[in-house]
Amino acid sequence: MTEQTLLTTQTSQEQSEKQTSNPGTKQPRQLVRFTFYKLDPQWQLLHEEKRQQGKQELLAIFDAYSQEHVMRSFGLYGLRSDCDFMLWQASYAIEDLQGISSKIRCSVMGPYIREVHAFLSMTKRSVYVGKNARGAHDPRLVITPEDKKYLFVYPFVKTRTWYALSLEDRKRMMNEHIRVGLTFPSVSLNTTYSFGLDDQEFVVAFETDIVSDFLDLVQQLRETEASRYTLRDTPMFTCVAQPLHEILEAIGA
Amino acid sequence: MTEQTLLTTQTSQEQSEKQTSNPGTKQPRQLVRFTFYKLDPQWQLLHEEKRQQGKQELLAIFDAYSQEHVMRSFGLYGLRSDCDFMLWQASYAIEDLQGISSKIRCSVMGPYIREVHAFLSMTKRSVYVGKNARGAHDPRLVITPEDKKYLFVYPFVKTRTWYALSLEDRKRMMNEHIRVGLTFPSVSLNTTYSFGLDDQEFVVAFETDIVSDFLDLVQQLRETEASRYTLRDTPMFTCVAQPLHEILEAIGA
Amino acid sequence: MTEQTLLTTQTSQEQSEKQTSNPGTKQPRQLVRFTFYKLDPQWQLLHEEKRQQGKQELLAIFDAYSQEHVMRSFGLYGLRSDCDFMLWQASYAIEDLQGISSKIRCSVMGPYIREVHAFLSMTKRSVYVGKNARGAHDPRLVITPEDKKYLFVYPFVKTRTWYALSLEDRKRMMNEHIRVGLTFPSVSLNTTYSFGLDDQEFVVAFETDIVSDFLDLVQQLRETEASRYTLRDTPMFTCVAQPLHEILEAIGA
Amino acid sequence: MTEQTLLTTQTSQEQSEKQTSNPGTKQPRQLVRFTFYKLDPQWQLLHEEKRQQGKQELLAIFDAYSQEHVMRSFGLYGLRSDCDFMLWQASYAIEDLQGISSKIRCSVMGPYIREVHAFLSMTKRSVYVGKNARGAHDPRLVITPEDKKYLFVYPFVKTRTWYALSLEDRKRMMNEHIRVGLTFPSVSLNTTYSFGLDDQEFVVAFETDIVSDFLDLVQQLRETEASRYTLRDTPMFTCVAQPLHEILEAIGA
Amino acid sequence: MTEQTLLTTQTSQEQSEKQTSNPGTKQPRQLVRFTFYKLDPQWQLLHEEKRQQGKQELLAIFDAYSQEHVMRSFGLYGLRSDCDFMLWQASYAIEDLQGISSKIRCSVMGPYIREVHAFLSMTKRSVYVGKNARGAHDPRLVITPEDKKYLFVYPFVKTRTWYALSLEDRKRMMNEHIRVGLTFPSVSLNTTYSFGLDDQEFVVAFETDIVSDFLDLVQQLRETEASRYTLRDTPMFTCVAQPLHEILEAIGA
Repeated sequence: MTEQTLLTTQTSQEQSEKQTSNPGTKQPRQLVRFTFYKLDPQWQLLHEEKRQQGKQELLAIFDAYSQEHVMRSFGLYGLRSDCDFMLWQASYAIEDLQGISSKIRCSVMGPYIREVHAFLSMTKRSVYVGKNARGAHDPRLVITPEDKKYLFVYPFVKTRTWYALSLEDRKRMMNEHIRVGLTFPSVSLNTTYSFGLDDQEFVVAFETDIVSDFLDLVQQLRETEASRYTLRDTPMFTCVAQPLHEILEAIGA
Repeated sequence: MTEQTLLTTQTSQEQSEKQTSNPGTKQPRQLVRFTFYKLDPQWQLLHEEKRQQGKQELLAIFDAYSQEHVMRSFGLYGLRSDCDFMLWQASYAIEDLQGISSKIRCSVMGPYIREVHAFLSMTKRSVYVGKNARGAHDPRLVITPEDKKYLFVYPFVKTRTWYALSLEDRKRMMNEHIRVGLTFPSVSLNTTYSFGLDDQEFVVAFETDIVSDFLDLVQQLRETEASRYTLRDTPMFTCVAQPLHEILEAIGA
Repeated sequence: MTEQTLLTTQTSQEQSEKQTSNPGTKQPRQLVRFTFYKLDPQWQLLHEEKRQQGKQELLAIFDAYSQEHVMRSFGLYGLRSDCDFMLWQASYAIEDLQGISSKIRCSVMGPYIREVHAFLSMTKRSVYVGKNARGAHDPRLVITPEDKKYLFVYPFVKTRTWYALSLEDRKRMMNEHIRVGLTFPSVSLNTTYSFGLDDQEFVVAFETDIVSDFLDLVQQLRETEASRYTLRDTPMFTCVAQPLHEILEAIGA
Repeated sequence: MTEQTLLTTQTSQEQSEKQTSNPGTKQPRQLVRFTFYKLDPQWQLLHEEKRQQGKQELLAIFDAYSQEHVMRSFGLYGLRSDCDFMLWQASYAIEDLQGISSKIRCSVMGPYIREVHAFLSMTKRSVYVGKNARGAHDPRLVITPEDKKYLFVYPFVKTRTWYALSLEDRKRMMNEHIRVGLTFPSVSLNTTYSFGLDDQEFVVAFETDIVSDFLDLVQQLRETEASRYTLRDTPMFTCVAQPLHEILEAIGA
Repeated sequence: MTEQTLLTTQTSQEQSEKQTSNPGTKQPRQLVRFTFYKLDPQWQLLHEEKRQQGKQELLAIFDAYSQEHVMRSFGLYGLRSDCDFMLWQASYAIEDLQGISSKIRCSVMGPYIREVHAFLSMTKRSVYVGKNARGAHDPRLVITPEDKKYLFVYPFVKTRTWYALSLEDRKRMMNEHIRVGLTFPSVSLNTTYSFGLDDQEFVVAFETDIVSDFLDLVQQLRETEASRYTLRDTPMFTCVAQPLHEILEAIGA
């Protein structure tokens, strides 16, 4: 894992001072959404002309949004039975997340593509990297996809016992976790925070070009002490970076 | 969190005397409902004229109810995959909750908007604020939305172990919980009670204008001792205050 | 709670002798069913004439059954998202439960009203009230609704640890449970038994005219020792006693 | 319970020698399936003529199969909300289970009757009855319905802790279990085995003519020591023996 | 179980050196997918001609893929209620898994066959067989079906406690597991790895010609010490090797 993104745990007592609501003196944080779609097979039974029109409209919405915000498309058809593709978005304004959803909903394809899963989160500084190291322009507060071939995404919830541990114990366990991660330099990690916003505590997103490296990393992490404090880490999604137009062709849209 | 609404736990032994069924001497309590709707995509395929008629009818029902009762609308499209909008209602009579539901069901849009989640609850005094402080006109018994930009809602169930603790222990833990809450003055809390009425024990609703403050508060609360007695606090809903007509346009209704 | 119905636990060792299969010397026990229905919105799109015919037929079926058996209707629209109304039936013969279901299924509305939940149970004597007190005509073996305004229903499963306790311990806990219940005289309880017949062990049904009394009672019961042995007590249903014709009008049938 | 069928636990260490794959010297074991069906309400909207044709075809398939294999029909309408009827089959060849399913699927009613639950299992000798007592023609290896009025069915999974107990401890607990069962002579038990074949370990099927006897037996068994090692015993199905043609009429097919 | 495939556990600390991302010096690993399909009954209502065309197209897709990759078909109709057939695929490229899915989706039958379950995994060496024994051409890295009559498949998750055990303890338990397996020589095992790729840790697939042998093996394995560390091993699928054209005929496609 790259060093930049290894650190996922936050001790809130250390943070409360600088995270409270005076945004003027702080670098803004981004909202992030991972939205998983399934095409209604009824769409495939419509006339070719309407389907071409619908696909062009959807691609135009996607492209327009992509020019101003972080937006990536991934194919999951052939890998996971409950969804066909995923859109990964990041923006500073919740209106942007709602806006793209509204545009898709109101388009010709809108009534035929279902959101079957979605994870909402925000960027946040981790307590495990010192403030001095990053200053006011911490890259962890901005989503910057590395555009590798695969993205692995899952929601994450720790046991309440974890949060009752001392900061020292948690730091020790996170350091072991980090050491294992560093043995897989091909894998980089984006962790965002969902406390109170959605059903999970974190959304964990790993980028890599080598599927087996990610599998081996996750298996090794099972033996770390921190792993015992995992309450939930499913569903797990294997996502392949693909242009949206290729995905739509592939699923027969 | 504002001081008024911080207190969520109730020791029933202290309450049984004054909460029993002699309503003449007590301030009445309100019934509260949070109803989450999803639009059936078939609605979008109907003729424009019928859809305009349906939307106008739904807005008129909403407006008429709002003039006599607490009623607010929130958008969830683009944030949560399983619902599009939420209506927050409060009233002294269960007939009012049933009445608005009936009017919506019997309207043109009725067969096309599904209730996918709903939480039923009542207002109730907390044991942690003394009777003298509020007297017979306790504002906690009346829902008064502050009309901030965001509402965060989730159902809440404590472990049975919590209820076996002494009152003293629970008060101590609630005081710590309160102290953490007070460090986020932008967040205010409405807690209502669902024991026996619905699948949860409490419905917790936080209002704020700053999403990140709420996220940081919830993360900090994980480290409180009271947090270990949480059995369930999902699903969690991020709701954006929006006029109903804007929501209906946005979801292509 | 009324004294008659407070007692819900049964020690089978004391009962095996008198509950075995010689029905000639015993008062018969009733079968009870709580059936929760949801109207298919497609029904609302049918012609008015067919819908009037369907409603009249359903009401006639209901009325005919009511004349010979215990049968009550309750509205849940506007209170719970997954069902519209509930029918509470009791009869000595399983054929009666199947008969009413068959008549509804074969009626015009049959294909459009879905059973979304149902709880099957039987009446049974509790071990906590002595045999002498009731004799051969124990009212607990006959369902006699008090026809109050509200009925609260939920399925109930105790932990296996409960059943491993001594009879003495369980009696002590049930006595505490009873004492709490007696402080809410407006609430009366019907407990029926589902062991082996359905997914729960008991179906608990409380009648009251005062919603807040029931809520406060359930919250107080959380602090009893017996409460720690609850494995499952959801879903919980708030039901409003209403004539079936009013319900059908209200849900746009 | 009848003595023949009381015994449900198997200690595999004692069995491995005689259960391995030399079928020539052993009495063959049967495959058993409990299939629960729900009628699609769309069927009820088809023309009477097609429906009569469909029902006759289904009855002919059922009768033909019944002449060569164990096959029984049970009604669940009016008792359980998620299914209408159940077919209980037993055969020596998996092709027979697939064959009847195929015939039903390909019939006129096929697209309109859904399998909503199914439990697949096999007959097997229990370790608690000695080999000598039964010899090579053990009746437990052949399903022979007693054709009583009621059949109660549920899937059953024990905790892994059970399997870590000594054989002696398990035998002692099973003996207590058996003693309780013997006090209800009206109830007989068919236990079949699903390890590795389906989601449960056992399928338990009780036949009786007296519903309350079965309820009372299951409640008493809660107090046995073996009961503490139950991990899952739901869903539970109350099934009424009925000719298939009566069932089809009753559900409006 | 055959010796080749008995070993399922991997100690990652021993593996990290040789499993990292330098594929040039390593035998490549395969991606594996088990996809379970259910036919939409609407397909059966289409004209015979279109259905024949659809079936021929699906068979041609299947045959073309089978000539270049591992691909097998299995029937589950009549055995499991939630699916009709399963396709077992293996390939070195994720594009192959996506490609076959795309071809099926875009075919005439595409809108009518639903993926109701799917398990994604990879081959991987087990730590329990030494490197020297196999060298660079380890057969465990290549899926080679033995084409027996039955395939039993389930997803598998171990408890986190397992991963906290010493390697020595885990090896001891796996050796006991292996010894039990060896008493059933008719059963062979394919274990593949899903860490991070899908909701399970392993996908376990057993081939045999004798159903009862597999049942007896799974029951015996319950008594091993390793069995206590199983967190989840359901759903379990009994799959019958059948040509796809026979399956399609049997389910009325």
